[in-house]
Amino acid sequence: MRSTTARPANLHQARLLRLLRDHGPQSRVDLGTRVELSRSKLAFEVDRLLKAGLAVPDGLAASRGGRRSHNVRIAPSLRFLGVDIGATSVDVAVTNGELEVLGHLAETLDVRDGPVTVFERVLTLAGKLRTTASVDHFDGAGIGVPGPVRFPEGVPVAPPIMPGWNGFPVREVLSQELGCPVLVDNDVNLIALGEQQAGVARSVRDFLCVKLGTGIGCGIVVGGEVHRGVTGSAGDIGHIQVEPDGLRCVCGNTGCLEAHFSGQALARDAAASARSGRSAELAARLAAAGTLTAEDVSAAAGAGDTVAVDLIRGGGRRTGQVIAQLVSFFNPAMVVVAGGLTGLGHSLLASIRTQVYRQSPPLATGNLPIVLGELGQVAGVVGGARLISDHLFSPA
Amino acid sequence: MRSTTARPANLHQARLLRLLRDHGPQSRVDLGTRVELSRSKLAFEVDRLLKAGLAVPDGLAASRGGRRSHNVRIAPSLRFLGVDIGATSVDVAVTNGELEVLGHLAETLDVRDGPVTVFERVLTLAGKLRTTASVDHFDGAGIGVPGPVRFPEGVPVAPPIMPGWNGFPVREVLSQELGCPVLVDNDVNLIALGEQQAGVARSVRDFLCVKLGTGIGCGIVVGGEVHRGVTGSAGDIGHIQVEPDGLRCVCGNTGCLEAHFSGQALARDAAASARSGRSAELAARLAAAGTLTAEDVSAAAGAGDTVAVDLIRGGGRRTGQVIAQLVSFFNPAMVVVAGGLTGLGHSLLASIRTQVYRQSPPLATGNLPIVLGELGQVAGVVGGARLISDHLFSPA
Repeated sequence: MRSTTARPANLHQARLLRLLRDHGPQSRVDLGTRVELSRSKLAFEVDRLLKAGLAVPDGLAASRGGRRSHNVRIAPSLRFLGVDIGATSVDVAVTNGELEVLGHLAETLDVRDGPVTVFERVLTLAGKLRTTASVDHFDGAGIGVPGPVRFPEGVPVAPPIMPGWNGFPVREVLSQELGCPVLVDNDVNLIALGEQQAGVARSVRDFLCVKLGTGIGCGIVVGGEVHRGVTGSAGDIGHIQVEPDGLRCVCGNTGCLEAHFSGQALARDAAASARSGRSAELAARLAAAGTLTAEDVSAAAGAGDTVAVDLIRGGGRRTGQVIAQLVSFFNPAMVVVAGGLTGLGHSLLASIRTQVYRQSPPLATGNLPIVLGELGQVAGVVGGARLISDHLFSPA
Repeated sequence: MRSTTARPANLHQARLLRLLRDHGPQSRVDLGTRVELSRSKLAFEVDRLLKAGLAVPDGLAASRGGRRSHNVRIAPSLRFLGVDIGATSVDVAVTNGELEVLGHLAETLDVRDGPVTVFERVLTLAGKLRTTASVDHFDGAGIGVPGPVRFPEGVPVAPPIMPGWNGFPVREVLSQELGCPVLVDNDVNLIALGEQQAGVARSVRDFLCVKLGTGIGCGIVVGGEVHRGVTGSAGDIGHIQVEPDGLRCVCGNTGCLEAHFSGQALARDAAASARSGRSAELAARLAAAGTLTAEDVSAAAGAGDTVAVDLIRGGGRRTGQVIAQLVSFFNPAMVVVAGGLTGLGHSLLASIRTQVYRQSPPLATGNLPIVLGELGQVAGVVGGARLISDHLFSPA
């Protein structure tokens, strides 16, 4: 069913809808306090939201003396689709208007198969969710891809790990297929939005969200808004140099962070350690599985293998070097660390913290939490739902 | 005379004032087009600005057919004071409401003499300007200092090169002395605002402004607004590490950009080259003057001294390394290079560009101008006037 969702008619209505999304059902009195509207203006705007079907009455509010006020909640029929396409996996979820996840499916996938194959899979998963979560429509969808995106058009640009995607009109094609408005963004930006919406960065307005996975990227939130940069490549920190005469990187430079630490780099270094005989533990795992992954390094470290521990600590130190520079430059209120490599365990986070607190000026680190994301695999899909709802909950 | 300037009563009036400040006298029709107000609403708000004395009629506008419209201009009596306190100099200027400089005085000064001594000098200079520029009052003042500032309170915090300034209530004291509203900011932020107001970054909304002087700092402008960071230390890039086992820095770390390249570092390296006999040119200058400065290095390079040329190129390369990282991270629309060391000449800028274009991803550098600031010594004072006028031209 094609979405026919109304849009708020003005900024007041947009703010009311976002309050209902973020704080759940509430009384008109509470809404009025939060938006600072006069009683009559508030009543007028809320009534228009009710008439447009964007909000519904929700019983009587608790008495404060005097006439009891009606609660209002966001339309319970709203459904948003969040899609998080990674280098090697895809997550698809459907949420309600309060951005609660009603259903979530994940699969492995190779983004290098190209957009047509990938979106067939995405649409199949979205179809399954319609059945399992009894959803008959989507009001909008937010899609994350693992590379830079020209945000206004929703088109990936020159994505290094996504051959075949350059210039593919993701927004237009998916909007057609899903029959609803679609926005496309870099996956790390969606993780940042997800953690801000429902995770560890809730209510934080200036923070960095560093994703450590197959690649490394950074979401930048300034004054509550994602900073995407003039060509959509802001946060591309994987290619910041950490070793002046370091390893050759796929980007053509040498010594990039990603060349020294990332899911791929870790697998490569683990295999080298196994083959050279430096780590019996990794050698045994390589012999058993024929290949090594970050999980093997994590397990080997857990079993006390010092080579594996050193690989993790070295990666944390290099990541910390880069984060320290970003902290000096940007002076954020929080650094969130997310992505698959956070599965490497606490020693990674500890190494990052040590490096940042040692290297950045005290004024910038004095009250700086460096914390793991809370939402794990659903951060990106919640962020996708947040992104498209921000768009729909803006004046038409 | 104490300022008694009215403030705009609402957001419309604030926007009208900023348009008159930035675009000069203009017809009501042009104003109406720019702010998208109805004719009657516009007439109402403009009349209130005229009544409040914030704007004045300015003759008839050019005919467009029909009844001729009156031009409006910002009150010609408005006077803003801009003060730019550097490590070794101070600039003081007075502007009109369109932020044109009516008078400008500069002196050498040592910021380490402490706030009381420095502000005696500043007040003396401001007094001189009153006489020479026939100013009988200031409507507001914007003050830049060479260190981090807790912006809401206007108080320097832990400024490394400003002993005695930590916690000094600059805003409160100067507001009292000058009898007008005062805002205090980091000097680099004011340079960025100045270049955006009247210089090379005019109309650019996302850019970095790197100041190379006694120290090194960076102004960050996001969506037209200065990003100051959660503790006011954003842009503190002088202590980003450029050499893993580099020189010891005053901050306690090793290998910081400032330890390797800054006015001080350059003078140190030039003296070492002179004493070691590597540069006859620098040795002659050292013998003649007893000391060497960045100007000597510039002059020696101009005379073909290869050691001096290498010092400048090496500094440019290291600065470029850091800017490349910021470009990868922030994806700005422009990088402005300002500060005293830009006097070193074109080879500095050329080295910076080479390094950034080589090291940052093509998507971030494809349309990235790396340019010198245009306003030189008045950038900071124009920025100060801009800062305080932004504040005064906001709803009260």
